[in-house]
This record gives sequence, C-alpha cells and structure tokens, in this order.
Amino acid sequence: MSEAAVPDRLASRARELDAGDELAALRARFVLDDDDVVYLDGNSLGALPATVPDRVDDVVRRQWGRLRIRSWEESGWWTAPERIGDRIAPLVGAAAGQIVVGDSTSVNVFKALVAAVRMARETGGEGRDEIVVDATTFPTDGYIAGSAARMTGCALRPVEPAGVPGALGDRTAAVLLNHVDYRTGRLHDLPGLTAAVHAAGAVVVWDLCHSAGALPVGLDAHGVDLAVGCTYKYLNGGPGSPAYLYVRRDLQGRFDSPLPGWNSHAEPFGMRSAYEAAPGAVRGRVGTPDILSMLALEASLDVWEGVGIDAVRAKSLALTDFFLECVEAYAGPGRTECVTPRRHGERGSQVALRCPDAGDVMKHLIGRGVVGDFRHPDVLRFGFTPLYVGFADAERAARVLGEVLDEVAGGATA
Amino acid sequence: MSEAAVPDRLASRARELDAGDELAALRARFVLDDDDVVYLDGNSLGALPATVPDRVDDVVRRQWGRLRIRSWEESGWWTAPERIGDRIAPLVGAAAGQIVVGDSTSVNVFKALVAAVRMARETGGEGRDEIVVDATTFPTDGYIAGSAARMTGCALRPVEPAGVPGALGDRTAAVLLNHVDYRTGRLHDLPGLTAAVHAAGAVVVWDLCHSAGALPVGLDAHGVDLAVGCTYKYLNGGPGSPAYLYVRRDLQGRFDSPLPGWNSHAEPFGMRSAYEAAPGAVRGRVGTPDILSMLALEASLDVWEGVGIDAVRAKSLALTDFFLECVEAYAGPGRTECVTPRRHGERGSQVALRCPDAGDVMKHLIGRGVVGDFRHPDVLRFGFTPLYVGFADAERAARVLGEVLDEVAGGATA
Repeated sequence: MSEAAVPDRLASRARELDAGDELAALRARFVLDDDDVVYLDGNSLGALPATVPDRVDDVVRRQWGRLRIRSWEESGWWTAPERIGDRIAPLVGAAAGQIVVGDSTSVNVFKALVAAVRMARETGGEGRDEIVVDATTFPTDGYIAGSAARMTGCALRPVEPAGVPGALGDRTAAVLLNHVDYRTGRLHDLPGLTAAVHAAGAVVVWDLCHSAGALPVGLDAHGVDLAVGCTYKYLNGGPGSPAYLYVRRDLQGRFDSPLPGWNSHAEPFGMRSAYEAAPGAVRGRVGTPDILSMLALEASLDVWEGVGIDAVRAKSLALTDFFLECVEAYAGPGRTECVTPRRHGERGSQVALRCPDAGDVMKHLIGRGVVGDFRHPDVLRFGFTPLYVGFADAERAARVLGEVLDEVAGGATA
Repeated sequence: MSEAAVPDRLASRARELDAGDELAALRARFVLDDDDVVYLDGNSLGALPATVPDRVDDVVRRQWGRLRIRSWEESGWWTAPERIGDRIAPLVGAAAGQIVVGDSTSVNVFKALVAAVRMARETGGEGRDEIVVDATTFPTDGYIAGSAARMTGCALRPVEPAGVPGALGDRTAAVLLNHVDYRTGRLHDLPGLTAAVHAAGAVVVWDLCHSAGALPVGLDAHGVDLAVGCTYKYLNGGPGSPAYLYVRRDLQGRFDSPLPGWNSHAEPFGMRSAYEAAPGAVRGRVGTPDILSMLALEASLDVWEGVGIDAVRAKSLALTDFFLECVEAYAGPGRTECVTPRRHGERGSQVALRCPDAGDVMKHLIGRGVVGDFRHPDVLRFGFTPLYVGFADAERAARVLGEVLDEVAGGATA
C-alpha cells in the first residue's frame, strides 16, 4: 500500500468503527457541534451536557430568584449532597447511601486520609504512624497527605505504585492511591492493592479523579474503604464542580472527620454547641453546599441515563487502541514516546505521549482544532471520553499531530 | 390618638422614610418585585441580583460550553478567587491582595484557626495551647474549632463574648469570634476585642458572616489578623456561594495552611512533588474553585457599584429602629422579647424576637408573605438588608406579626 493510501485507509476504518458504535448517539446529549473541534480534554474539563443550561437557569431565576430561602426545602437544596452522591454511586460500583458530594477533591482527600489514620489506630494502635502515598501522584494529593501526616503525627512515605505492597507493614496507617495516573494514564490494580493494604491492617483511600465515568471502579465489590474523586472530568459536572467522598457503609460509624461542620451534625438545625456526627454518608459533609455548581452537576448526570459503564470501557479501549494505531501511522516511529501502557489492564482512558517541545506542539494542535493538554515537562495528554468522542475524532487528531510534528520539528517526512 | 390611627400613622411615617431614602433606588438592582413578599431573610440567603442570571448563562453556555478548557485562562477562571476577593475587600475595609474566595466558611475557619495557632506558637512558643471560642457562636465555628484544637494539641475554651478579655493569657494561642451573633444579632466590639487578643500575644480570627455587607468592618484599620465570612447573606452571592478568607498582608508569609492544595502552590502547573506556598493571599486557596458559584458571586457584587458601606449602615440602623417601634405598636408590650440590643453600637442588621411558639408564628408569617426565619428554640429572626428592604416593608412585617401573634396566641387584643 502506498504512503498516500494510509489516510484513506484509516479514515475509512474510522467511519466503519463509528458506524458500529452503539454509544455514538450519546454525543447528541452534549453541546459540541457548534465548532469544528476535536475535544480530547474531557479528562480535564468535560463538555457541557445539553440539559445543564436550562436547569441552571431555573435554579438561578426560579429557585433562588423567586422561592429564595424556601428552596432549601422545596427545591431539595438541603439534601442535594447525598442525593447526587447516590446518582454517582452506580458509576463507581457503590450501593446507595455511601457517597456525598461537596468541597474540592483536595479537601476530601484531607477528610478521608485523617479519618483513615484514625480508623487504623482504633484497631491497630498508635504504632500505626505512616501514611503511604503514590510518589507519582497528582501533586495536590501529596501536599494534602503531607498535611494529614503532620497533623496526625505520621510520617509521609512516598512510594512508586509498583513498590506499594512491599512498603506496607505494621506501621502503615493509611495508603492514598490513584486509580489512574493523571499524567501517564496508567491504570493501577485497585483490587490487588486494596487487598494488600487490608492484609497489612491499614486503610486505603482511592482517588478516582481519572477513572470515574471512564471505566468500572467496583468500590463495593473490591472492599475499598474510602474514595474521593472530582466530577468535572469524565463526569462532566462543569468547571470546579464539587467533588465526592465515598465511605464504605460498615465504616461510616467510625468515620471521624477532621472537618466536622454543621452540615454533618446529627441535628443540623438543633444549633447545639456539642458536636454529634450524623449517621451515614452525610457525616462527610462540612459546610453549606455550593448549590449552583452542585445542581449543574446533578443535571449533567442525566447523560448517563441508560448507559452502562462496561460499554463505556469497551469503547474507551477501542478508541485509545485506534488512536495509538493512527499515531504510529501518521507520526511515525520514534517521533513520540507513548507513556500510557499498551496493555488494556493497565490503561485508563487517556493517551499520553512524550515528545520534545511538547508545550509548543500542543499550542499548534489547539490552533488547528485538536484540543488536548500539556503537562510539564514534556507530555501531551489526549483524553478519550467515550460518551462524545468518536473514531473519526481519533483519526483526525492523530493526523493533525503528525502534521504538527513535521512543522514544529522542522523536518517534513513527506 | 385612637388605636385605629396607629397603622395610618406608621404607614405614613414609612412612606416618608422611604421617600427620603437615598438607597431606595438600589432595590431595582435585584429581582424582587414579581411577588408580594417582604423578604427579611437576606441574612440567611440574599435576594437575586438582577445581573446574575444572564452572567451565569454566559458562563455556562459560552465559557464552559464553547470555550471549554480555554476558559481557565481566557475567561479568567483561574484567577477568580483572588480577583473576587479584591472586590469584597473594600466592603470589609481591606486593601487589595488580602482576600481569596473559595470553599465553605467552615473550611475557612479550619484553615484560619490552625494557621493562627501556628503563628502564635512561632512567636510565643509551644506553651500557647488554648483556643478560645465564643460560647454562643454559630455551631459550626465551635465544632471546627474543636477539631482545630484537637489537631494542634490545644484545649478548646468556650467563653461568653463578654468574658473573652478576662479569659486571655499566656496560654492563649488563637481566639475565634463572631462579629455579629447569628441568633441575637448582637454586634461585638471588633476593635476592642482585637486589641485585647493582641495584648495577650494571641492571634484573632473574626467570623464576618453576619456583618459583611451590612456594616463597616474595618479589618485593616483595626489590625485584624485573620477573618472569614460567607457571601450568601448580605453579599447576595447565591445559595452556598463560596466563602472568603482574609489574611493580613504582613502575616501572609507566616500563613501555614493545614490545607495546602495545588491551587496555593507557588507554581501550580509545575506539578512539583514538594509543596512550596505561593506568596500573598493566594496561599489560602486549596483545590479547583467551583467556577459557576464563584462567577455568580462575582456578578452579584455589581450591586455595590457606587454604594458606600456607611450609608448602608445608617439605613440599617434606621430600619431596625423603625421596625422595633412598629413591633411595639402592633404587637404590644410583653408579647415578644427583643433579644437584639437596642444600643446602636451593639446591633447588627437583624432583629431577633423571642416568643412562645416561635416556629408556628414564623410559619404563619411566611404564609402571609413576611419571610423571616426561625432559630431553635424560640427565636424569630428578621434580617434587614438595606440594599433592597424599605421602611414600608418593616411596617408591614410588624403589622402582620401583630396579627399573627393574635391568631397563634389565640387572644385577639381588639
């Protein structure tokens, strides 16, 4: 086959794959087609679901503007954190009553880690004085873990994920792990690592920011203790939409929050001076929830109606496989290095490519309508959100990448 | 004057007062006149400013929906917390660069108190092991102060506000005080108490939830160390809109946050594994800001254009004076007990009345279009927000209260 035939062949393959894609129609649930952009940054900020604008408008004009204070009851504002938690629950394999929405991921990491250390000590004693954290984690998790360690009298022990099982022991109180690495897109072994942490008598906290909404998580099935995640990536909740906290049902009575705000009180309107923690997931709440962002998130979850996470995962892998094939064809070997694992069992829903001048390359890509992002120092990230990205998008992105690499690297391969 | 003439006289006074009110025209900056309600709950949830709905719509449809990820830079999302902080600053007497917006009040109380203890110990040594907190505080402040005390090895010492100066000493690390009491509406002596805390070598944290936007605060003028506040009461930012944190400029380098999220890093996109705090107020940030709620707040601050806080205070006192006069006339003596101080120097911008069956009384009031709120166990709260409440509102509220008391108490005074 001639060189010139490659684009035709891949474009044709893309059309076939799109035609056979059972999830293809879901794209219409998003606001996307008013520009000619391939949006591969849904792993940073999910696209706008079509039902959100009118819902937010109703929240602002009617619920706030007309009902005002009455909306705390009449519009269901007060119970939004646990109600929306229950809608996220099936997407991460959790039964109802274990997730509350609110605060940022960073704040939830703090709640979860401090509570984890307290749980571990309750059963394992004060000798549990180490927090193990993924050394390659998204920085905020490490910073917050450092603060949690400092404030609970623990040492912080950063460990490469592969080395975590070997680092666990009698001193381990809590372990904070990422399900999918934000930079490389590597998927970690949640069932195996959870079991290892439990075998060491410690408590595990999983950060699901880069997996929830992209692949099955199975929190209940794998006996995860605590988990946190954001909602603005694959869950499309909007910029800075509130994060969530999962506390396994049988641990809720022992969840001792470092942020015991009035929203987590057993009787929040009793205005009592003594704190008494509410039962259930509500215990993870803190202060007054940010209703506009929270109800935008609630509306955004409508896009999951009738969608199974297994089908999402199958399409995600097919998309990233196809993208990698196209990158190889268009960018040629040796122009980029793929830092995302090829094995399906180790891959999330993004492809991260390392190349020289990655910051410049991404600027050119965006200028030509292919939106991914750049992560310091040399990584191009392309997120594949199966609800609205198709195979033709993947083909176009790889083709434009090939062209941009020619330009930026200066040497066209003709 | 006959009994029957009282309503006429007060209604006529109200008309005169409204006619002479220089702030009366500001009411048009809010969405209020589509119902026949006297809204006296702006001390719980401020009314909707007229510019907010279209602004939020633009944020959702264009900034999120079309620009998507580009909005972090192009729409100014990233810098919103400090930009909006600078817009709140003049309302609380702070120069620019000392306030960041984000998180809930509860979370900010935690940041401020832990940082305050650390500052106090840096200069005063580890013997500083007490946190003094207003015993009559809004509960969440007490709960969070309890957690801050536990996590810094301090004892929590609840003290009635009047007793605070006498409770301070060599062991005091930090003091958490409310500028205005949420229940009684009592205004505390911020300059005097701040000076007393400083004289004891301790650090003061003021909670401005019930004063900011209603009266002059003078943070800089009075040398306040740290302050927090919500934005959904007199600042009209919307339900659960983000809170703010003030760190006095010369203390910023010593602000050692217990929640050092990536947003407060000196180089947030450097993705460095070691934490290095940013200079300035930005150090108070934690995780990704909730943009929808935050930009609604930003739009809501437009209502302050050209409004001086001294004029607001003057009207607030005139309104609450007049309301108390009307309550006395309509409800008669002994039917309610006013728990808000009569002295101007001790009054915030609400009137709290104690009466039997207060919960029932408030339900009836709301049913008849006078919206205040009930606080356990026996308090009716009426908030007077000078930007949109007028004297006729105050007269009507008191008149309806008189009628409701007749009904609920069962004995018409005819």
